[in-house]
Amino acid sequence: MIAVGSGGRHLEDEIKILGGELIETEIKKFPDGEKYVRVLGSAEEVTVVQSTFAPQDEHIVELILIADALRERGAERLRAVVPYFAYSRQDRVTKEGEPVSVRAVMRALGTYYDELYVFDMHNPETLKFFPGKAVNLSPARAIADYFVERLGDGLVLAPDKGARERARAVAERLGLEFSHFEKERISPTEVRMTPVDVDVRGKNVLIVDDIISTGGTMVRAANLLKEMGAGKVFVAATHGVFAEGAIERVSNAVDELAVTNTIPTPVSRISIVPEIMKL
Amino acid sequence: MIAVGSGGRHLEDEIKILGGELIETEIKKFPDGEKYVRVLGSAEEVTVVQSTFAPQDEHIVELILIADALRERGAERLRAVVPYFAYSRQDRVTKEGEPVSVRAVMRALGTYYDELYVFDMHNPETLKFFPGKAVNLSPARAIADYFVERLGDGLVLAPDKGARERARAVAERLGLEFSHFEKERISPTEVRMTPVDVDVRGKNVLIVDDIISTGGTMVRAANLLKEMGAGKVFVAATHGVFAEGAIERVSNAVDELAVTNTIPTPVSRISIVPEIMKL
Repeated sequence: MIAVGSGGRHLEDEIKILGGELIETEIKKFPDGEKYVRVLGSAEEVTVVQSTFAPQDEHIVELILIADALRERGAERLRAVVPYFAYSRQDRVTKEGEPVSVRAVMRALGTYYDELYVFDMHNPETLKFFPGKAVNLSPARAIADYFVERLGDGLVLAPDKGARERARAVAERLGLEFSHFEKERISPTEVRMTPVDVDVRGKNVLIVDDIISTGGTMVRAANLLKEMGAGKVFVAATHGVFAEGAIERVSNAVDELAVTNTIPTPVSRISIVPEIMKL
Repeated sequence: MIAVGSGGRHLEDEIKILGGELIETEIKKFPDGEKYVRVLGSAEEVTVVQSTFAPQDEHIVELILIADALRERGAERLRAVVPYFAYSRQDRVTKEGEPVSVRAVMRALGTYYDELYVFDMHNPETLKFFPGKAVNLSPARAIADYFVERLGDGLVLAPDKGARERARAVAERLGLEFSHFEKERISPTEVRMTPVDVDVRGKNVLIVDDIISTGGTMVRAANLLKEMGAGKVFVAATHGVFAEGAIERVSNAVDELAVTNTIPTPVSRISIVPEIMKL
Protein backbone atom coordinates (compact mmCIF):
# COMPACT_ATOMS: atom_id res chain seq x y z
CA MET A 1 0.00 0.00 0.00
CA ILE A 2 1.15 3.50 -0.87
CA ALA A 3 0.27 6.83 0.73
CA VAL A 4 1.35 10.20 -0.64
CA GLY A 5 1.76 13.54 1.11
CA SER A 6 1.43 16.92 -0.54
CA GLY A 7 5.00 16.50 -1.85
CA GLY A 8 3.92 13.37 -3.71
CA ARG A 9 0.49 14.48 -4.89
CA HIS A 10 1.82 15.17 -8.41
CA LEU A 11 2.81 11.48 -8.72
CA GLU A 12 -0.49 10.04 -7.45
CA ASP A 13 -2.28 9.59 -10.80
CA GLU A 14 0.65 7.77 -12.35
CA ILE A 15 1.01 5.53 -9.30
CA LYS A 16 -2.65 4.55 -9.75
CA ILE A 17 -2.25 3.99 -13.50
CA LEU A 18 0.71 1.70 -12.83
CA GLY A 19 -1.40 -0.38 -10.47
CA GLY A 20 -0.39 1.07 -7.11
CA GLU A 21 -2.90 0.66 -4.29
CA LEU A 22 -3.32 3.99 -2.60
CA ILE A 23 -4.29 4.86 0.94
CA GLU A 24 -6.00 8.22 0.62
CA THR A 25 -4.61 11.08 2.64
CA GLU A 26 -6.19 14.35 3.67
CA ILE A 27 -3.76 17.19 4.22
CA LYS A 28 -4.64 20.77 5.00
CA LYS A 29 -3.35 23.77 6.85
CA PHE A 30 -5.13 25.33 9.83
CA PRO A 31 -5.54 29.12 9.85
CA ASP A 32 -2.69 29.37 12.40
CA GLY A 33 -0.30 27.59 9.98
CA GLU A 34 -0.27 24.12 11.53
CA LYS A 35 -0.63 21.17 9.19
CA TYR A 36 -3.51 18.76 9.64
CA VAL A 37 -2.98 15.24 8.35
CA ARG A 38 -5.30 12.25 8.16
CA VAL A 39 -4.87 8.84 6.55
CA LEU A 40 -8.02 7.11 5.33
CA GLY A 41 -6.70 3.58 5.65
CA SER A 42 -3.65 1.63 6.69
CA ALA A 43 -1.83 -1.63 6.20
CA GLU A 44 0.90 -3.62 7.89
CA GLU A 45 3.45 -2.27 5.42
CA VAL A 46 3.07 1.15 3.91
CA THR A 47 5.22 3.14 1.50
CA VAL A 48 4.89 6.90 1.92
CA VAL A 49 5.87 8.89 -1.16
CA GLN A 50 6.78 12.46 -0.33
CA SER A 51 9.28 14.64 -2.14
CA THR A 52 10.71 17.45 -0.03
CA PHE A 53 10.98 20.39 -2.41
CA ALA A 54 9.84 23.84 -1.19
CA PRO A 55 8.25 24.36 1.27
CA GLN A 56 10.82 21.81 2.41
CA ASP A 57 10.25 22.00 6.16
CA GLU A 58 6.49 21.57 5.77
CA HIS A 59 7.03 18.51 3.63
CA ILE A 60 9.46 17.07 6.18
CA VAL A 61 7.07 17.59 9.10
CA GLU A 62 4.20 16.12 7.04
CA LEU A 63 6.29 13.00 6.54
CA ILE A 64 6.51 12.33 10.26
CA LEU A 65 2.86 13.27 10.85
CA ILE A 66 1.72 10.80 8.17
CA ALA A 67 3.95 8.14 9.72
CA ASP A 68 2.54 8.78 13.18
CA ALA A 69 -1.01 8.41 11.83
CA LEU A 70 -0.13 5.16 10.04
CA ARG A 71 1.55 3.72 13.14
CA GLU A 72 -1.47 4.76 15.21
CA ARG A 73 -3.61 2.68 12.82
CA GLY A 74 -1.35 -0.33 13.18
CA ALA A 75 1.27 -0.06 10.42
CA GLU A 76 4.30 -2.13 11.41
CA ARG A 77 6.74 -1.36 8.63
CA LEU A 78 7.10 2.05 7.06
CA ARG A 79 9.10 3.01 4.01
CA ALA A 80 9.71 6.61 3.06
CA VAL A 81 10.26 7.29 -0.63
CA VAL A 82 11.67 10.81 -0.79
CA PRO A 83 12.40 11.43 -4.49
CA TYR A 84 14.05 14.81 -3.81
CA PHE A 85 15.67 14.93 -0.41
CA ALA A 86 15.77 18.44 1.05
CA TYR A 87 19.02 19.62 2.60
CA SER A 88 20.96 17.01 0.62
CA ARG A 89 23.50 19.64 -0.43
CA GLN A 90 24.12 20.65 3.18
CA ASP A 91 26.11 17.48 3.59
CA ARG A 92 29.25 18.69 5.35
CA VAL A 93 30.62 21.41 7.61
CA THR A 94 32.29 23.95 5.35
CA LYS A 95 32.49 26.69 7.99
CA GLU A 96 32.88 25.90 11.67
CA GLY A 97 29.54 26.02 13.43
CA GLU A 98 27.47 24.68 10.57
CA PRO A 99 25.29 21.62 11.01
CA VAL A 100 25.31 18.61 8.72
CA SER A 101 21.70 19.50 7.96
CA VAL A 102 20.95 16.41 5.89
CA ARG A 103 21.92 14.29 8.90
CA ALA A 104 19.46 16.09 11.15
CA VAL A 105 16.60 15.46 8.73
CA MET A 106 17.54 11.80 8.29
CA ARG A 107 17.63 11.25 12.02
CA ALA A 108 14.21 12.88 12.42
CA LEU A 109 12.72 10.62 9.73
CA GLY A 110 14.42 7.66 11.39
CA THR A 111 12.16 8.05 14.43
CA TYR A 112 9.29 6.63 12.34
CA TYR A 113 10.58 5.05 9.14
CA ASP A 114 12.30 1.69 8.79
CA GLU A 115 13.50 2.25 5.23
CA LEU A 116 14.38 5.26 3.13
CA TYR A 117 14.52 5.46 -0.66
CA VAL A 118 15.83 8.54 -2.43
CA PHE A 119 16.75 9.40 -6.00
CA ASP A 120 20.20 10.46 -7.05
CA MET A 121 21.35 11.76 -3.69
CA HIS A 122 23.80 14.65 -4.05
CA ASN A 123 26.23 12.86 -1.75
CA PRO A 124 25.19 9.20 -1.40
CA GLU A 125 27.47 8.75 1.60
CA THR A 126 25.04 10.81 3.66
CA LEU A 127 22.58 7.91 3.55
CA LYS A 128 24.60 6.41 6.38
CA PHE A 129 22.99 8.97 8.72
CA PHE A 130 19.61 7.28 8.33
CA PRO A 131 19.29 4.75 11.14
CA GLY A 132 17.57 2.07 9.01
CA LYS A 133 18.02 0.70 5.51
CA ALA A 134 18.66 3.52 3.03
CA VAL A 135 18.84 3.16 -0.74
CA ASN A 136 19.88 5.59 -3.46
CA LEU A 137 17.81 4.94 -6.60
CA SER A 138 19.02 5.88 -10.05
CA PRO A 139 16.97 7.78 -12.62
CA ALA A 140 19.42 6.66 -15.35
CA ARG A 141 17.00 4.26 -17.02
CA ALA A 142 14.21 6.84 -17.08
CA ILE A 143 16.52 9.51 -18.51
CA ALA A 144 17.97 7.10 -21.09
CA ASP A 145 14.51 5.98 -22.24
CA TYR A 146 13.38 9.56 -22.67
CA PHE A 147 16.35 10.59 -24.81
CA VAL A 148 17.11 7.39 -26.75
CA GLU A 149 15.45 8.48 -30.02
CA ARG A 150 16.41 12.15 -29.74
CA LEU A 151 20.08 11.28 -29.22
CA GLY A 152 20.57 8.68 -31.96
CA ASP A 153 24.22 7.72 -32.02
CA GLY A 154 25.20 10.77 -29.98
CA LEU A 155 27.10 10.92 -26.73
CA VAL A 156 26.56 11.68 -23.08
CA LEU A 157 28.54 14.23 -21.10
CA ALA A 158 28.80 15.08 -17.43
CA PRO A 159 29.27 18.80 -16.65
CA ASP A 160 32.18 17.96 -14.35
CA LYS A 161 34.26 15.02 -13.23
CA GLY A 162 32.20 14.48 -10.08
CA ALA A 163 29.10 13.82 -12.19
CA ARG A 164 30.87 11.34 -14.48
CA GLU A 165 29.29 8.22 -12.99
CA ARG A 166 25.83 9.57 -13.73
CA ALA A 167 26.76 10.12 -17.40
CA ARG A 168 28.24 6.64 -17.57
CA ALA A 169 25.05 5.07 -16.18
CA VAL A 170 22.88 6.80 -18.80
CA ALA A 171 25.34 6.15 -21.66
CA GLU A 172 25.64 2.46 -20.84
CA ARG A 173 21.89 1.99 -21.05
CA LEU A 174 22.01 3.63 -24.48
CA GLY A 175 25.15 1.87 -25.66
CA LEU A 176 26.75 5.27 -26.28
CA GLU A 177 30.07 6.95 -25.58
CA PHE A 178 30.38 9.20 -22.51
CA SER A 179 32.82 11.69 -21.08
CA HIS A 180 32.93 14.80 -18.88
CA PHE A 181 33.91 18.45 -19.00
CA GLU A 182 37.06 19.63 -17.36
CA LYS A 183 36.67 23.00 -15.68
CA GLU A 184 39.55 25.42 -15.39
CA ARG A 185 39.25 28.78 -13.69
CA ILE A 186 40.98 31.30 -15.97
CA SER A 187 39.95 34.44 -14.06
CA PRO A 188 37.88 35.18 -10.94
CA THR A 189 34.74 35.37 -13.07
CA GLU A 190 35.58 33.05 -15.96
CA VAL A 191 35.74 29.28 -16.18
CA ARG A 192 36.98 27.42 -19.25
CA MET A 193 35.20 24.13 -19.89
CA THR A 194 36.62 21.42 -22.15
CA PRO A 195 35.03 18.09 -23.00
CA VAL A 196 37.69 15.47 -22.32
CA ASP A 197 38.91 12.95 -24.93
CA VAL A 198 35.85 13.15 -27.11
CA ASP A 199 34.95 14.55 -30.53
CA VAL A 200 31.58 16.29 -30.45
CA ARG A 201 31.52 17.43 -34.11
CA GLY A 202 28.26 16.46 -35.79
CA LYS A 203 27.11 14.49 -32.74
CA ASN A 204 24.00 15.00 -30.68
CA VAL A 205 24.99 15.49 -27.05
CA LEU A 206 23.11 14.93 -23.79
CA ILE A 207 24.52 16.67 -20.72
CA VAL A 208 23.38 15.03 -17.50
CA ASP A 209 23.59 16.38 -13.94
CA ASP A 210 21.89 15.71 -10.62
CA ILE A 211 20.57 19.19 -9.86
CA ILE A 212 20.06 22.29 -11.99
CA SER A 213 19.61 25.48 -10.01
CA THR A 214 20.83 28.60 -11.82
CA GLY A 215 21.66 26.64 -14.96
CA GLY A 216 24.80 28.72 -15.57
CA THR A 217 27.06 25.72 -16.09
CA MET A 218 24.59 24.09 -18.47
CA VAL A 219 24.28 27.23 -20.58
CA ARG A 220 28.09 27.59 -20.82
CA ALA A 221 28.49 23.93 -21.71
CA ALA A 222 25.76 24.08 -24.35
CA ASN A 223 27.19 27.19 -25.98
CA LEU A 224 30.62 25.64 -26.09
CA LEU A 225 29.30 22.43 -27.69
CA LYS A 226 27.49 24.42 -30.37
CA GLU A 227 30.70 26.39 -31.08
CA MET A 228 32.58 23.12 -31.36
CA GLY A 229 30.17 21.92 -34.03
CA ALA A 230 27.96 19.56 -32.04
CA GLY A 231 24.57 18.60 -33.46
CA LYS A 232 21.61 18.88 -31.13
CA VAL A 233 22.34 19.61 -27.47
CA PHE A 234 20.04 18.22 -24.78
CA VAL A 235 20.18 18.83 -21.05
CA ALA A 236 18.78 16.47 -18.43
CA ALA A 237 18.88 16.50 -14.66
CA THR A 238 17.30 14.49 -11.91
CA HIS A 239 16.18 17.39 -9.74
CA GLY A 240 14.96 20.66 -11.22
CA VAL A 241 15.60 23.01 -8.30
CA PHE A 242 15.36 25.91 -10.70
CA ALA A 243 16.23 29.44 -9.62
CA GLU A 244 14.02 32.15 -11.08
CA GLY A 245 14.46 32.39 -14.85
CA ALA A 246 16.65 29.28 -15.03
CA ILE A 247 14.23 27.19 -17.07
CA GLU A 248 14.05 29.90 -19.75
CA ARG A 249 17.81 30.54 -19.71
CA VAL A 250 18.68 26.87 -20.20
CA SER A 251 15.81 26.19 -22.62
CA ASN A 252 16.94 29.05 -24.87
CA ALA A 253 20.49 27.68 -24.99
CA VAL A 254 19.67 24.05 -25.84
CA ASP A 255 17.45 21.94 -28.08
CA GLU A 256 15.62 20.44 -25.15
CA LEU A 257 15.74 20.62 -21.38
CA ALA A 258 14.03 17.87 -19.42
CA VAL A 259 14.20 16.87 -15.76
CA THR A 260 12.52 14.10 -13.78
CA ASN A 261 9.41 14.59 -11.69
CA THR A 262 11.16 14.26 -8.33
CA ILE A 263 10.23 17.96 -8.27
CA PRO A 264 7.20 19.10 -10.29
CA THR A 265 8.26 21.80 -12.79
CA PRO A 266 7.10 22.78 -16.29
CA VAL A 267 9.90 20.62 -17.75
CA SER A 268 9.53 17.57 -15.46
CA ARG A 269 8.81 15.28 -18.40
CA ILE A 270 10.77 12.23 -17.21
CA SER A 271 8.95 10.07 -14.70
CA ILE A 272 10.57 8.19 -11.84
CA VAL A 273 7.27 6.57 -10.82
CA PRO A 274 8.08 3.30 -12.65
CA GLU A 275 11.20 3.00 -10.46
CA ILE A 276 9.10 3.52 -7.33
CA MET A 277 6.66 0.83 -8.45
CA LYS A 278 9.51 -1.69 -8.62
CA LEU A 279 10.20 -1.38 -4.88
CA MET B 1 25.19 29.16 27.52
CA ILE B 2 22.06 30.04 25.56
CA ALA B 3 21.47 30.03 21.81
CA VAL B 4 18.32 31.30 20.14
CA GLY B 5 16.79 30.45 16.79
CA SER B 6 14.57 32.75 14.76
CA GLY B 7 11.65 31.72 16.99
CA GLY B 8 13.53 33.05 20.01
CA ARG B 9 15.07 36.17 18.48
CA HIS B 10 12.44 38.42 20.10
CA LEU B 11 13.62 37.27 23.54
CA GLU B 12 17.35 37.74 22.90
CA ASP B 13 17.74 41.29 24.23
CA GLU B 14 15.99 40.50 27.49
CA ILE B 15 18.05 37.33 27.94
CA LYS B 16 21.18 39.49 27.64
CA ILE B 17 19.85 42.14 30.02
CA LEU B 18 19.13 39.44 32.59
CA GLY B 19 22.71 38.21 32.34
CA GLY B 20 22.34 35.32 29.92
CA GLU B 21 25.47 34.33 28.02
CA LEU B 22 24.56 34.00 24.38
CA ILE B 23 26.08 31.88 21.64
CA GLU B 24 25.41 33.87 18.48
CA THR B 25 23.49 32.15 15.74
CA GLU B 26 23.25 32.97 12.06
CA ILE B 27 20.03 31.85 10.40
CA LYS B 28 19.00 32.54 6.83
CA LYS B 29 17.03 31.05 4.00
CA PHE B 30 18.58 30.02 0.69
CA PRO B 31 16.78 31.12 -2.48
CA ASP B 32 15.42 27.57 -2.90
CA GLY B 33 13.76 27.76 0.54
CA GLU B 34 16.21 25.70 2.59
CA LYS B 35 17.25 27.06 5.95
CA TYR B 36 20.92 27.73 6.65
CA VAL B 37 22.02 27.67 10.25
CA ARG B 38 25.33 28.40 11.90
CA VAL B 39 26.33 28.66 15.56
CA LEU B 40 29.21 30.96 16.40
CA GLY B 41 30.27 29.15 19.54
CA SER B 42 29.42 26.19 21.69
CA ALA B 43 29.69 24.79 25.19
CA GLU B 44 29.33 21.48 26.96
CA GLU B 45 25.79 22.36 27.97
CA VAL B 46 23.65 24.60 25.82
CA THR B 47 20.07 25.80 26.18
CA VAL B 48 18.39 26.52 22.84
CA VAL B 49 15.45 28.91 23.07
CA GLN B 50 13.08 28.59 20.16
CA SER B 51 9.36 29.15 20.17
CA THR B 52 7.48 27.33 17.42
CA PHE B 53 4.80 29.78 16.32
CA ALA B 54 4.20 30.23 12.57
CA PRO B 55 5.97 29.26 10.38
CA GLN B 56 5.85 26.33 12.80
CA ASP B 57 7.54 23.72 10.64
CA GLU B 58 10.47 25.99 9.83
CA HIS B 59 10.98 26.69 13.51
CA ILE B 60 10.85 22.96 14.29
CA VAL B 61 13.42 22.08 11.62
CA GLU B 62 15.64 24.96 12.76
CA LEU B 63 15.62 23.49 16.26
CA ILE B 64 17.15 20.23 15.08
CA LEU B 65 19.61 21.99 12.73
CA ILE B 66 20.86 24.18 15.59
CA ALA B 67 21.20 21.08 17.77
CA ASP B 68 23.15 19.25 15.08
CA ALA B 69 25.53 22.19 14.76
CA LEU B 70 26.04 22.39 18.53
CA ARG B 71 26.68 18.64 18.80
CA GLU B 72 29.12 18.90 15.89
CA ARG B 73 30.99 21.50 17.95
CA GLY B 74 31.09 19.25 20.98
CA ALA B 75 28.00 20.08 23.03
CA GLU B 76 27.19 17.16 25.30
CA ARG B 77 23.95 18.18 26.91
CA LEU B 78 21.25 20.06 25.04
CA ARG B 79 18.12 21.62 26.46
CA ALA B 80 15.33 22.89 24.26
CA VAL B 81 13.23 25.70 25.68
CA VAL B 82 10.16 25.87 23.45
CA PRO B 83 7.94 28.57 24.99
CA TYR B 84 5.09 27.90 22.56
CA PHE B 85 5.02 24.31 21.40
CA ALA B 86 3.52 23.91 17.93
CA TYR B 87 0.98 21.14 17.40
CA SER B 88 0.25 21.07 21.16
CA ARG B 89 -3.50 21.11 20.47
CA GLN B 90 -3.23 18.10 18.13
CA ASP B 91 -2.84 15.93 21.19
CA ARG B 92 -5.26 13.06 20.50
CA VAL B 93 -6.95 11.14 17.71
CA THR B 94 -10.43 12.63 17.36
CA LYS B 95 -11.16 11.03 13.96
CA GLU B 96 -9.70 7.68 12.98
CA GLY B 97 -6.62 8.17 10.83
CA GLU B 98 -5.33 11.28 12.53
CA PRO B 99 -1.84 11.41 14.01
CA VAL B 100 -1.03 12.56 17.52
CA SER B 101 0.94 15.34 15.90
CA VAL B 102 2.47 16.70 19.08
CA ARG B 103 3.98 13.26 19.69
CA ALA B 104 5.66 13.24 16.27
CA VAL B 105 7.29 16.61 16.92
CA MET B 106 8.44 15.59 20.39
CA ARG B 107 10.02 12.43 19.07
CA ALA B 108 11.84 14.37 16.35
CA LEU B 109 13.24 16.82 18.92
CA GLY B 110 14.19 13.86 21.09
CA THR B 111 16.77 12.78 18.51
CA TYR B 112 18.95 15.70 19.63
CA TYR B 113 17.71 17.18 22.90
CA ASP B 114 18.15 15.72 26.37
CA GLU B 115 15.68 18.03 28.06
CA LEU B 116 12.60 19.93 26.97
CA TYR B 117 11.01 22.93 28.69
CA VAL B 118 7.70 24.35 27.54
CA PHE B 119 5.25 26.91 28.91
CA ASP B 120 1.68 26.08 29.81
CA MET B 121 1.29 23.06 27.55
CA HIS B 122 -2.27 22.69 26.30
CA ASN B 123 -2.28 19.08 27.50
CA PRO B 124 0.65 18.53 29.88
CA GLU B 125 0.26 14.75 29.60
CA THR B 126 1.68 14.93 26.09
CA LEU B 127 5.10 15.68 27.59
CA LYS B 128 5.44 11.95 28.16
CA PHE B 129 6.06 11.58 24.41
CA PHE B 130 9.40 13.36 24.73
CA PRO B 131 12.05 10.70 25.31
CA GLY B 132 14.06 12.72 27.84
CA LYS B 133 13.22 14.96 30.76
CA ALA B 134 10.28 17.24 29.93
CA VAL B 135 9.01 20.08 32.11
CA ASN B 136 5.91 22.24 31.86
CA LEU B 137 6.70 25.75 33.15
CA SER B 138 4.04 28.06 34.48
CA PRO B 139 3.62 31.71 33.48
CA ALA B 140 1.40 32.27 36.56
CA ARG B 141 3.96 34.37 38.42
CA ALA B 142 4.59 36.57 35.37
CA ILE B 143 0.87 37.08 34.76
CA ALA B 144 0.20 37.76 38.44
CA ASP B 145 3.01 40.32 38.66
CA TYR B 146 1.74 42.13 35.58
CA PHE B 147 -1.83 42.46 36.85
CA VAL B 148 -1.32 42.85 40.62
CA GLU B 149 -1.86 46.61 40.73
CA ARG B 150 -4.52 46.72 38.01
CA LEU B 151 -6.63 44.09 39.78
CA GLY B 152 -6.54 45.40 43.33
CA ASP B 153 -8.79 43.20 45.44
CA GLY B 154 -10.47 41.76 42.36
CA LEU B 155 -10.82 38.14 41.36
CA VAL B 156 -9.49 35.70 38.80
CA LEU B 157 -11.71 33.62 36.52
CA ALA B 158 -11.04 30.75 34.17
CA PRO B 159 -13.15 30.72 30.99
CA ASP B 160 -14.08 27.07 31.60
CA LYS B 161 -13.64 24.36 34.18
CA GLY B 162 -10.63 22.84 32.36
CA ALA B 163 -8.70 26.09 32.78
CA ARG B 164 -9.50 26.38 36.50
CA GLU B 165 -6.04 25.32 37.71
CA ARG B 166 -4.45 28.13 35.74
CA ALA B 167 -6.77 30.68 37.39
CA ARG B 168 -6.00 29.18 40.77
CA ALA B 169 -2.25 29.48 40.24
CA VAL B 170 -2.51 33.17 39.35
CA ALA B 171 -5.04 33.93 42.11
CA GLU B 172 -2.93 32.26 44.80
CA ARG B 173 0.07 34.37 43.93
CA LEU B 174 -2.14 37.45 44.31
CA GLY B 175 -3.98 36.25 47.42
CA LEU B 176 -7.27 36.67 45.56
CA GLU B 177 -10.44 34.66 45.04
CA PHE B 178 -10.83 32.57 41.91
CA SER B 179 -13.48 30.65 40.06
CA HIS B 180 -14.51 29.57 36.57
CA PHE B 181 -17.31 29.97 34.07
CA GLU B 182 -19.75 27.17 33.49
CA LYS B 183 -20.70 26.83 29.84
CA GLU B 184 -24.11 25.56 28.80
CA ARG B 185 -25.13 25.16 25.20
CA ILE B 186 -28.64 26.60 24.88
CA SER B 187 -28.89 26.39 21.06
CA PRO B 188 -26.61 25.21 18.23
CA THR B 189 -25.11 28.70 18.00
CA GLU B 190 -25.52 30.00 21.54
CA VAL B 191 -23.63 29.20 24.72
CA ARG B 192 -24.67 30.53 28.11
CA MET B 193 -21.75 31.28 30.44
CA THR B 194 -22.14 31.68 34.18
CA PRO B 195 -19.40 32.47 36.71
CA VAL B 196 -19.70 29.84 39.42
CA ASP B 197 -20.17 30.69 43.12
CA VAL B 198 -18.74 34.16 42.94
CA ASP B 199 -20.07 37.70 43.12
CA VAL B 200 -18.46 39.90 40.47
CA ARG B 201 -20.37 43.12 41.28
CA GLY B 202 -17.98 46.03 41.73
CA LYS B 203 -14.95 43.78 41.42
CA ASN B 204 -12.15 43.98 38.90
CA VAL B 205 -11.85 40.64 37.12
CA LEU B 206 -8.97 38.94 35.32
CA ILE B 207 -9.89 36.10 32.95
CA VAL B 208 -6.95 33.77 32.30
CA ASP B 209 -6.60 31.12 29.60
CA ASP B 210 -3.77 29.23 27.93
CA ILE B 211 -4.42 30.18 24.29
CA ILE B 212 -6.50 32.87 22.65
CA SER B 213 -7.22 32.28 18.97
CA THR B 214 -10.53 33.78 17.79
CA GLY B 215 -11.17 35.38 21.17
CA GLY B 216 -14.91 34.63 20.93
CA THR B 217 -15.15 33.11 24.40
CA MET B 218 -13.24 35.98 25.97
CA VAL B 219 -15.51 38.58 24.36
CA ARG B 220 -18.62 36.77 25.54
CA ALA B 221 -17.24 36.38 29.04
CA ALA B 222 -16.21 40.04 29.24
CA ASN B 223 -19.59 41.31 28.03
CA LEU B 224 -21.36 39.13 30.55
CA LEU B 225 -19.17 40.38 33.39
CA LYS B 226 -19.87 43.99 32.49
CA GLU B 227 -23.63 43.25 32.40
CA MET B 228 -23.33 41.67 35.82
CA GLY B 229 -21.80 44.84 37.18
CA ALA B 230 -18.12 43.92 37.30
CA GLY B 231 -15.55 46.71 37.58
CA LYS B 232 -12.63 46.55 35.15
CA VAL B 233 -12.28 43.40 33.08
CA PHE B 234 -8.82 42.19 32.06
CA VAL B 235 -7.93 39.27 29.83
CA ALA B 236 -4.62 37.38 29.94
CA ALA B 237 -3.38 34.31 28.13
CA THR B 238 -0.08 32.51 27.87
CA HIS B 239 -0.07 32.08 24.11
CA GLY B 240 -1.49 34.69 21.74
CA VAL B 241 -2.23 32.53 18.69
CA PHE B 242 -4.51 35.27 17.44
CA ALA B 243 -6.72 34.74 14.41
CA GLU B 244 -7.10 37.79 12.17
CA GLY B 245 -8.89 40.61 13.96
CA ALA B 246 -8.90 38.80 17.30
CA ILE B 247 -6.65 41.29 19.10
CA GLU B 248 -8.97 44.16 18.15
CA ARG B 249 -12.13 42.22 18.99
CA VAL B 250 -10.94 41.28 22.46
CA SER B 251 -9.26 44.63 23.14
CA ASN B 252 -12.51 46.48 22.35
CA ALA B 253 -14.48 44.32 24.78
CA VAL B 254 -12.14 44.59 27.78
CA ASP B 255 -10.11 47.12 29.74
CA GLU B 256 -6.84 45.43 28.88
CA LEU B 257 -5.70 42.39 26.96
CA ALA B 258 -2.17 41.11 27.60
CA VAL B 259 -0.45 37.85 26.70
CA THR B 260 3.04 36.56 27.36
CA ASN B 261 5.86 36.73 24.86
CA THR B 262 5.94 32.98 24.12
CA ILE B 263 4.62 34.31 20.79
CA PRO B 264 5.54 37.87 19.77
CA THR B 265 2.36 39.91 19.20
CA PRO B 266 1.45 43.59 19.68
CA VAL B 267 0.01 42.69 23.12
CA SER B 268 2.80 40.36 24.33
CA ARG B 269 3.54 42.56 27.32
CA ILE B 270 4.18 39.83 29.89
CA SER B 271 7.65 38.33 29.74
CA ILE B 272 8.48 34.71 30.46
CA VAL B 273 12.23 35.33 30.09
CA PRO B 274 12.79 35.58 33.88
CA GLU B 275 11.37 32.05 34.17
CA ILE B 276 13.79 30.83 31.51
CA MET B 277 16.71 32.44 33.32
CA LYS B 278 15.90 30.42 36.45
CA LEU B 279 16.54 27.11 34.68
